[in-house]
Amino acid sequence: MHQVERWSVFEWSGKGKTAGNPFTDYEIFGLFRGPAGEKKVSGFYDGDGVYRVRFMPETEGEYTFEIFGSFSDEIQKGAFVCTPAAEGNHGPVRARGFHFEYDDGTAYYPLGTTCYVWNLQKEELRNATLAELKKGYFNKIRFCVWPKHYLYNLHEPVTYPYEGTPVKLNWVNDGGYPPMGNLPGNHWDFTRFNPQHFRGVEKCIAQLGEIGVEADLIVMHPYDRWGFSCMTKEQDDLYWKYVLARFSAYRNVWWSLANEYDLLREKTVADWERFGKLIVENDPYGHLRSIHNCTVVYDHSRPWITHCSIQRTDTYKTTELVDQYRVRYGKPVIMDEICYEGDIDQGWGNISGQELVRRYWEAALRGGYATHGETFVGHDDILWWSHGGALHGESPARIRFLGEILKQTPGAGLRILENRSWDEVAACSDGVMGDGGYYLYYYGLNRPSSRLFRKNPGEKFHVEVIDTWNMTVEDRGVQEGTFRIALPGREYMAIRLRRV
Amino acid sequence: MHQVERWSVFEWSGKGKTAGNPFTDYEIFGLFRGPAGEKKVSGFYDGDGVYRVRFMPETEGEYTFEIFGSFSDEIQKGAFVCTPAAEGNHGPVRARGFHFEYDDGTAYYPLGTTCYVWNLQKEELRNATLAELKKGYFNKIRFCVWPKHYLYNLHEPVTYPYEGTPVKLNWVNDGGYPPMGNLPGNHWDFTRFNPQHFRGVEKCIAQLGEIGVEADLIVMHPYDRWGFSCMTKEQDDLYWKYVLARFSAYRNVWWSLANEYDLLREKTVADWERFGKLIVENDPYGHLRSIHNCTVVYDHSRPWITHCSIQRTDTYKTTELVDQYRVRYGKPVIMDEICYEGDIDQGWGNISGQELVRRYWEAALRGGYATHGETFVGHDDILWWSHGGALHGESPARIRFLGEILKQTPGAGLRILENRSWDEVAACSDGVMGDGGYYLYYYGLNRPSSRLFRKNPGEKFHVEVIDTWNMTVEDRGVQEGTFRIALPGREYMAIRLRRV
Repeated sequence: MHQVERWSVFEWSGKGKTAGNPFTDYEIFGLFRGPAGEKKVSGFYDGDGVYRVRFMPETEGEYTFEIFGSFSDEIQKGAFVCTPAAEGNHGPVRARGFHFEYDDGTAYYPLGTTCYVWNLQKEELRNATLAELKKGYFNKIRFCVWPKHYLYNLHEPVTYPYEGTPVKLNWVNDGGYPPMGNLPGNHWDFTRFNPQHFRGVEKCIAQLGEIGVEADLIVMHPYDRWGFSCMTKEQDDLYWKYVLARFSAYRNVWWSLANEYDLLREKTVADWERFGKLIVENDPYGHLRSIHNCTVVYDHSRPWITHCSIQRTDTYKTTELVDQYRVRYGKPVIMDEICYEGDIDQGWGNISGQELVRRYWEAALRGGYATHGETFVGHDDILWWSHGGALHGESPARIRFLGEILKQTPGAGLRILENRSWDEVAACSDGVMGDGGYYLYYYGLNRPSSRLFRKNPGEKFHVEVIDTWNMTVEDRGVQEGTFRIALPGREYMAIRLRRV
Repeated sequence: MHQVERWSVFEWSGKGKTAGNPFTDYEIFGLFRGPAGEKKVSGFYDGDGVYRVRFMPETEGEYTFEIFGSFSDEIQKGAFVCTPAAEGNHGPVRARGFHFEYDDGTAYYPLGTTCYVWNLQKEELRNATLAELKKGYFNKIRFCVWPKHYLYNLHEPVTYPYEGTPVKLNWVNDGGYPPMGNLPGNHWDFTRFNPQHFRGVEKCIAQLGEIGVEADLIVMHPYDRWGFSCMTKEQDDLYWKYVLARFSAYRNVWWSLANEYDLLREKTVADWERFGKLIVENDPYGHLRSIHNCTVVYDHSRPWITHCSIQRTDTYKTTELVDQYRVRYGKPVIMDEICYEGDIDQGWGNISGQELVRRYWEAALRGGYATHGETFVGHDDILWWSHGGALHGESPARIRFLGEILKQTPGAGLRILENRSWDEVAACSDGVMGDGGYYLYYYGLNRPSSRLFRKNPGEKFHVEVIDTWNMTVEDRGVQEGTFRIALPGREYMAIRLRRV
């Protein structure tokens, strides 16, 4: 029997009707019966008379399926066996309390980056991006389904999501923000998708999956000259259903409803809520769902939202607010835009590697997560933040180092230590460990020459001094009761105590 | 006739009664009649049978006076002439809107530092402090009337404010905070001051005045093992009246009611309000009045408070809040403790010079002011923050440079520019200049490689690029309309535009 690895994509494909508009005039469904019951999923039209249905089996064992719907007068039947997950395949990521884990229970600590349209660049550049990602700096990447029209992003993408012809951009680039929205001169048929465009996105999702990187897919965004952000309610819903039918079976997909949702001026909260409902109804696997803001943080307490995806709303205060957001929303917090490492004009993309890494540690120590981006000019107009390519900054290696430290957390992740000194950020292991045996103290911009610890007499701790910038962990042996730890008087130092 | 320079101290002294306790049993007053009317001031007993009355004439011309009270059975009379202020003598500093100016109308931009008990160190060390201050880094210094008992401050002061004997400190210094309050073993007569102690404070005030430095006098504080912070209401009031009678005539005195008022656990808001009233009633010159917090910011809207003196209440957010405090209290804002440059254990004293200078600029660009302090260990237990001595940090020269820039502000000081880009801090000249012709843009931790300005067509500006750390001002000529200014992609840069 055909074998499908657990949490991998099973795909059925076959010919169907083509009269009229196959994207809108016909339906196709798959009904899958397996060891844990049955699931009905939607398929999609992929052009050239071909229809496809995708399914991700979540339980090992035998499956049967039927493919049916108005696309064909016949019902197709089949079967396959779901085999155990291979090494490195842990299933989709789930929210658990204030943290994340894979479906097989392995802890997942988001260390994200942002390359908005790396997937719409030429193959050579896409491969360069993948080569950087293989170095293991990040385990999540945010990118867009739609092409991007923005500062540094004025060229044509390799494909468009619809049949039609784009506006010719007729604008003198003075370095300011270009005009946006549905510029006059676009000719699109919003009822006919361009399958090649979506196949490109899928290929990227799959390639990321192979190297263990989650695809935080931005389904809508306002950086637009083609009118994709200004479609009607019916056109939006058609788009969402197509996206959900095509991408849901990839285990590493996350749904980011929008980047800067509040800049999509023609959408209302009712629209976003409707999209949230559409995802819940049409993604049978319950992938993570979030929505990212510009100036107005969304109400992340909404039940369909699995975790907070927040852009900082202040130039200076960023991940310092993670613990407040945890309290406010009771969900995992990812600060998905906190200013990028770089040197561009705009204040959202020109901090140092040191400051970005500091913000990452601050997020981690407050029990949340941060996201990287890089915006250096002077590299043939290729900016990692948008196009991918080569990394030029100093933060990625340090982010990977933080990841190594985080993976050593016992229990269910970190949370801010309530009874810490007022002059430090300190975390303990969350969940089962409570305030007991695992402490991280981080000093950020402060540069203590030593720190005094007052623990209970007789309590012994293994002490390590961590240089978060130089990426070293120095063993300071076992200490007991009240003890002082010397530090080098530099910024970005941390101390770890583990009870022995 | 005897001559007294305007805003200088005229002092009458003479013998009086000594039976009983001259500090409490007798009164002494001076009534001064001058060109602008008459003022009654209190005198004080200075030991050895000597009484003194001090007076600061504020108007040029002839004065007559009478000295009277129960201290003597006779009334003393005299006269003097008040002569014009010498160069560099601008009179006391006053609050004006959100800023400060001297009594003669010269703008005053506070650039403060903190040496809590430099005045209670041996003469050699005091002279070293004065030598540093002569370099012009600062024009205000915060220091205490009482001796200080705290981390790094455990030795005996040169004098005590009362007759009696201090507790012998019997505590093993483990580097943590020592026990504080009225420790058992003190023997003080809180009705008998030690005039030598107060003469020491006066000498320091006068020496500061000679080099143009304001004395931000901390009259009460909680860093105490002798019980000064735990006196009765009557003892407190006696102390306040003595302080006011002795120090009010010095033009460079500011009254800081307390450092960290909320750590004086035995005092209530009613006490602080009573002290405020006592100052208003007993300081005939209306010197500046403020009160400094630890964790609970005082209600600076109280009418007797002339300006906000605020310690930051968050490790990371400090002078970023200046504009909010301006709105909240409608008064000048000085952030009088924002973490010191240094490397000590505690998080209130170990940031870099860069970060302290950044906080200073951030305060200035938001229309307020910041205060310096320095806490480096490893210099024979002499820390500038407490003892004075030599400065070791990198910030003082940069603070002086900021002062030079601030002095070039037209009109009445700076305020945050409301219609700035969201990704920068920008200020315009406050008051008469409005948003018109003088702009400062500051990028702090951001490192733009250029900035684009969109001014009205035809509007011309003289452009300068300021490196706030390297202390350079680079002329970029006259620009017009929309123009781009290249920057070096480093932190701590600013741009100044002046309309021509």
